[in-house]
Amino acid sequence: MNKEFLIQVHNRVKPYIHKTPVLSSQLINEITGCSVFFKCENFQKMGAFKMRGAANAILNLSEVDRKKGVVTHSSGNFAQALSLAANKIGIEAYIVMPENAPQVKKNAVKGYKGHIIESESTATAREQMAEKVKKETGATFIHPSNNDDVIHGQGTAAIELLDEHPELDYIFTPVGGGGLIAGTALAAKYFSNNCKVVGGEPKNADDAYRSLKAGKIQLNNNGATTIADGLRTFLGDRNFPIIKEHVNSIIRVEEHEIIEAMKLIWERMKIVIEPSSAVAFAALIKDKEDYKNKSVGIIISGGNVDVTNLPF
Amino acid sequence: MNKEFLIQVHNRVKPYIHKTPVLSSQLINEITGCSVFFKCENFQKMGAFKMRGAANAILNLSEVDRKKGVVTHSSGNFAQALSLAANKIGIEAYIVMPENAPQVKKNAVKGYKGHIIESESTATAREQMAEKVKKETGATFIHPSNNDDVIHGQGTAAIELLDEHPELDYIFTPVGGGGLIAGTALAAKYFSNNCKVVGGEPKNADDAYRSLKAGKIQLNNNGATTIADGLRTFLGDRNFPIIKEHVNSIIRVEEHEIIEAMKLIWERMKIVIEPSSAVAFAALIKDKEDYKNKSVGIIISGGNVDVTNLPF
Repeated sequence: MNKEFLIQVHNRVKPYIHKTPVLSSQLINEITGCSVFFKCENFQKMGAFKMRGAANAILNLSEVDRKKGVVTHSSGNFAQALSLAANKIGIEAYIVMPENAPQVKKNAVKGYKGHIIESESTATAREQMAEKVKKETGATFIHPSNNDDVIHGQGTAAIELLDEHPELDYIFTPVGGGGLIAGTALAAKYFSNNCKVVGGEPKNADDAYRSLKAGKIQLNNNGATTIADGLRTFLGDRNFPIIKEHVNSIIRVEEHEIIEAMKLIWERMKIVIEPSSAVAFAALIKDKEDYKNKSVGIIISGGNVDVTNLPF
Repeated sequence: MNKEFLIQVHNRVKPYIHKTPVLSSQLINEITGCSVFFKCENFQKMGAFKMRGAANAILNLSEVDRKKGVVTHSSGNFAQALSLAANKIGIEAYIVMPENAPQVKKNAVKGYKGHIIESESTATAREQMAEKVKKETGATFIHPSNNDDVIHGQGTAAIELLDEHPELDYIFTPVGGGGLIAGTALAAKYFSNNCKVVGGEPKNADDAYRSLKAGKIQLNNNGATTIADGLRTFLGDRNFPIIKEHVNSIIRVEEHEIIEAMKLIWERMKIVIEPSSAVAFAALIKDKEDYKNKSVGIIISGGNVDVTNLPF
């Protein structure tokens, strides 16, 4: 791993992604006491940064493997990302989704021409079904976050952000499965002088915080609920070592802090973001005294939210 | 009036405004059948294009006049724009607002250090109160839309849009008091080859449509209600002649069409826009057959909306 390698990753995915804008607001700076730069991956294709990792993973397959397609299990943004990336690259995507997944999410996958395979909603059932699809089709399994190519692809958002703002002292990201924060940490290592990476995590699903403390991967309770539902997933053996070595700290936030941060961004930045995206900003607000007068980038991870059913 | 004059206007206001981004979406292009470019004035300072005209009007005052401040009557975005522009330039702004204006709007003006003077809510009462303030303070009255400097300032959004997209065949704007569309029409005249300007107007407040038909300024009924409440105002003697000469057509849209267009932009563009901003896009959707395969700019006028009280 080196800078040149990550530049190649970026060049590989560029034709399949938007270079998303970076927005800032004087009022947000006044509230936080630092200079905040929002990298708006809510404007990314299919509405989230996951397009980057999905595209990189597929593009790294051999011609032979591409022909057999890709398979993943996800009911969230990665399901849509893999479907769209596969569609753009001209291959098949098989998406294992829980049978009780919301119809709107199934429709989004279908809209991008992904093939939905339903399974029971337990982790084991989803994994078994993905394994079955893999055997039957020969498709390559692409994990939504615990996959090197996915991690590297996700890091390209931070590469673009640091290219525009090399002065950043910190980059905050939400932490779910760990792909985004691990990729961001690698980008910060190779594309900045000493920019540190901080994770925001819901207190109700603080597996990454506990994992770092314990030095090994911890899970969430099965019953863990948070409005940032995309962040209930846990770390894996590919991204945890990177996070352990390169992530500065993880800040945990309460549900009401997530909702307040989300509302503030909608009202002041005039952008539509999903609750998971608000977690990183909520973390900055919570510990803002520690970041006074610093330059802070925040990766707004996505904007896929039901605008008819908001928490405020 | 010539191109050089408008370039000077633009240079004058530049230090006080954001150069707002232009966004596009493949899915929106598929829905409309044309290439749509959204000029995002919802990201403008104070959240609307009105900052441009307010800044230009104040900056054109003599030093002597500036010292005495400015006065306007508005309960909408122009109240905030004049307050903020005055504050940035270091002078006083007196804002006549109806006593029954929502507290959130009064707070916004106060936040920008504008002085609120309450009046009864009739047009006559507001005008008389503005006249009274003018006499007492010596402040210069700046009309929100029927003022040459305001009109020219509002046109700078289209100058920036045409600079980025000189290929545009059309620019759509909402039509309220007429400042934005008149300024846009002048910008299109001097900064494009043959880009035409089209207005979108709520059917429930179609005074501009009727004015163009009648050849003289028509008003709305006192009881006119539309979700695009910023567009209930009517044209004036400064902007109507420009509109009559340079605007191609005005398309009227129903309330449900405004709400659907607004929802589509929130969901697909991931940006927060106010209902008035959706009117121009609703107009394009309504008559999309007439714009097939064309390049169409749309000025998203602002994003000042109560996110806790949405129509969808």
